[in-house]
Amino acid sequence: MNRYENLSVPQLQEALRLETEKYVELRGKDVNVDMTRGRPSKEQLEIAMPMLKNAATYDYTTDMGDARNYGEPAGIKSARKLFADLFEVQSDEVIVCDGSSLDIMYNLVQFAMQFGVLDGKPWNKLDKVKFLCPSPGYDRHFSICANFGIEMITVPMLESGPDMDEVEKLVAGDESIKGIWCVPKYSNPTGIVYSDETVERMGRLNPLARDFRIFWDNAYIVHGLYEEENNLKNIFDVAKAAGKEDMVYELASTSKITFAGSGVSAIAASRRNVEDLLKKMFFKQINPNKVNQVMHVAFLRDVENIKTVMAKHARILRPKFELFERKLADAFGDCDDVKWSRPRGGYFISLDVRGVAKRVVALASEAGVKFTAAGATYPHMTDKDNTNIRIAPSVPSVEEMDFAVDVLVTSINIALLESALAKKS
Amino acid sequence: MNRYENLSVPQLQEALRLETEKYVELRGKDVNVDMTRGRPSKEQLEIAMPMLKNAATYDYTTDMGDARNYGEPAGIKSARKLFADLFEVQSDEVIVCDGSSLDIMYNLVQFAMQFGVLDGKPWNKLDKVKFLCPSPGYDRHFSICANFGIEMITVPMLESGPDMDEVEKLVAGDESIKGIWCVPKYSNPTGIVYSDETVERMGRLNPLARDFRIFWDNAYIVHGLYEEENNLKNIFDVAKAAGKEDMVYELASTSKITFAGSGVSAIAASRRNVEDLLKKMFFKQINPNKVNQVMHVAFLRDVENIKTVMAKHARILRPKFELFERKLADAFGDCDDVKWSRPRGGYFISLDVRGVAKRVVALASEAGVKFTAAGATYPHMTDKDNTNIRIAPSVPSVEEMDFAVDVLVTSINIALLESALAKKS
Repeated sequence: MNRYENLSVPQLQEALRLETEKYVELRGKDVNVDMTRGRPSKEQLEIAMPMLKNAATYDYTTDMGDARNYGEPAGIKSARKLFADLFEVQSDEVIVCDGSSLDIMYNLVQFAMQFGVLDGKPWNKLDKVKFLCPSPGYDRHFSICANFGIEMITVPMLESGPDMDEVEKLVAGDESIKGIWCVPKYSNPTGIVYSDETVERMGRLNPLARDFRIFWDNAYIVHGLYEEENNLKNIFDVAKAAGKEDMVYELASTSKITFAGSGVSAIAASRRNVEDLLKKMFFKQINPNKVNQVMHVAFLRDVENIKTVMAKHARILRPKFELFERKLADAFGDCDDVKWSRPRGGYFISLDVRGVAKRVVALASEAGVKFTAAGATYPHMTDKDNTNIRIAPSVPSVEEMDFAVDVLVTSINIALLESALAKKS
Repeated sequence: MNRYENLSVPQLQEALRLETEKYVELRGKDVNVDMTRGRPSKEQLEIAMPMLKNAATYDYTTDMGDARNYGEPAGIKSARKLFADLFEVQSDEVIVCDGSSLDIMYNLVQFAMQFGVLDGKPWNKLDKVKFLCPSPGYDRHFSICANFGIEMITVPMLESGPDMDEVEKLVAGDESIKGIWCVPKYSNPTGIVYSDETVERMGRLNPLARDFRIFWDNAYIVHGLYEEENNLKNIFDVAKAAGKEDMVYELASTSKITFAGSGVSAIAASRRNVEDLLKKMFFKQINPNKVNQVMHVAFLRDVENIKTVMAKHARILRPKFELFERKLADAFGDCDDVKWSRPRGGYFISLDVRGVAKRVVALASEAGVKFTAAGATYPHMTDKDNTNIRIAPSVPSVEEMDFAVDVLVTSINIALLESALAKKS
């Protein structure tokens, strides 16, 4: 129910006048808050500084030689083990790369386009290549498709993950569907964790295309905000049991564990896929930055210690997410036009303001609060209902968040009032 | 003149018997020496350890924000400035990337194959793509071509660089020739520095293909062995004067300045090329490892200080190169069948043993001394005269080198004697 639909035109005008007064007052404060991207805050970045402090004390001898020298294209053994434990797979199912998991995903697509997946035909030689894009989703996934001319098919995101009825039907009927983008845990931007049933159905998919791949971007694998973890079922367990482990590429990085873009990233995949990838990577690079890998393994040590590190991040992030929830519930708890997610982890809150997303983002921006462009969470920026806004609460301080959410609330009210008025005139 | 050609068969047999005795004795020492790749030695790697020691004391604030966070896809400004000074170009003509310049070169070729260079047609859509490969040259360059199905045209390497008469003629007459691989300073493996005339002719080339690119892999840009530098003419000065600066991609890395494969690498290119590359790189990566860039800039500081660092490397490398020269001159100074380069920098010595390269490498290997596979310095490993061997003296200690060169000398003698005998029977 639109909270304003029962008001008369003069009532709406009066409400808009009052709301605009609030807005002008906030804008006058001349505060600038950037909530466009999921970046760690300065306070979070300090958590990893002991890694740099101790950098010269670490042992750079690996069982393959000297980490400071060439060699070990799949990453150092201890780093492969650490990520294997995190992914709950074996070390030889992991390749540890440089800082960017986006770069790994791009390379996976590029390898497939140019050379094909395993013994498959290069995708460049096919008339059409399509990917399923559960939406709202991560804009950088969609950009990769756009860059390679891959057709994107939007699939609805539910509370349990992508609409699996739709996914199963689509992949079974179209050989040109070669991939699906997933952020299975604390999804970007809706914050949901894929249900066990979703993971089970995903790991057992029956795609018509033999070279179909699930891009399982587990970017927030250890990024819970609360002590009790929302556990994601291990897709490799499911896929292996079904003899389908070649179908899954799982990704993660330490961008939000140590340093953003200056950490290490990794891929988990079947042994056959790992072998295929290493063959292709041979031509690209002698080895990833192994000095950085030694530093990361020495600092992060094991999964248990990573959880301790992540609890420090959670203590910083949690109040910001909770402040958002509190203020939005106060303002729109009774309002059907405004919905938002209550994530238990990750970096985003998803806000739905049906029909007015662009106007809200524009108003907030004018008052100094920058959100991700409306539409960015959909393929080709086309959110046809103009509804979804991705909120990234990590960078601002709690005080800045307080201001930013006030701006957001009044921007939403103005947009809804304007919309109600437009309907009545 | 073959030193053995005037000997009778019994004399040859006796010489072979004596030489084989020496060989068996050396082999019996059971020493293993790896001279396959241009890797820095442990002693050299220690030079950069202060960089790690001080890692936590560096200032990670950049003029664009915090180096530990996302942003600055072209690298941090101070790193771009440092490489610009090294390349003698402007900062906005430089992109600083992760550790591997091989990775940059691969990406340049991949971008061209998939998307085309600037407004050119994607190379994937052409019937044929060819590269000029001055040989002997760097095997990893040739592998990139092989990987993408690019036809390689061998061009002779002279003392002055690639045979420019040949290069000029070829590029002017064939639109499918899209690139040339060059290691212009202390060339891999011949160690020569391109003459001013070669650089001038290269920078003013008139290729038929508008999207022809010179891959100017300046891997040994500051890697002289002696104080007086063999200066390489700046190809951008030449190309800019001729309005041809879009034709050049220049590469370098700190793999042999700080840590091999864990340093930073960079590309210098025209502003138009830089813009084109950043547009394409956007889809791949948020940013390179900027923490590593801050560390490198703090440690390396400026070109003058890089030269001081490199003098330390030279002090370690020089005796190994000189030992090789001394022993080879003693053994084969009067012998026309054995020629070798006398590089003033870089990581390699090029050895020519006409007709017996494979046999020499095999014999040395059996006695514990591993050289790069014979033929590796030619496209598709096809050194049709079976002549060239690349010697990488950096890794072994002087003592190990001493042994390795003894093995090499006796292996060459055996191979030449066998060959002389075969001709007489």
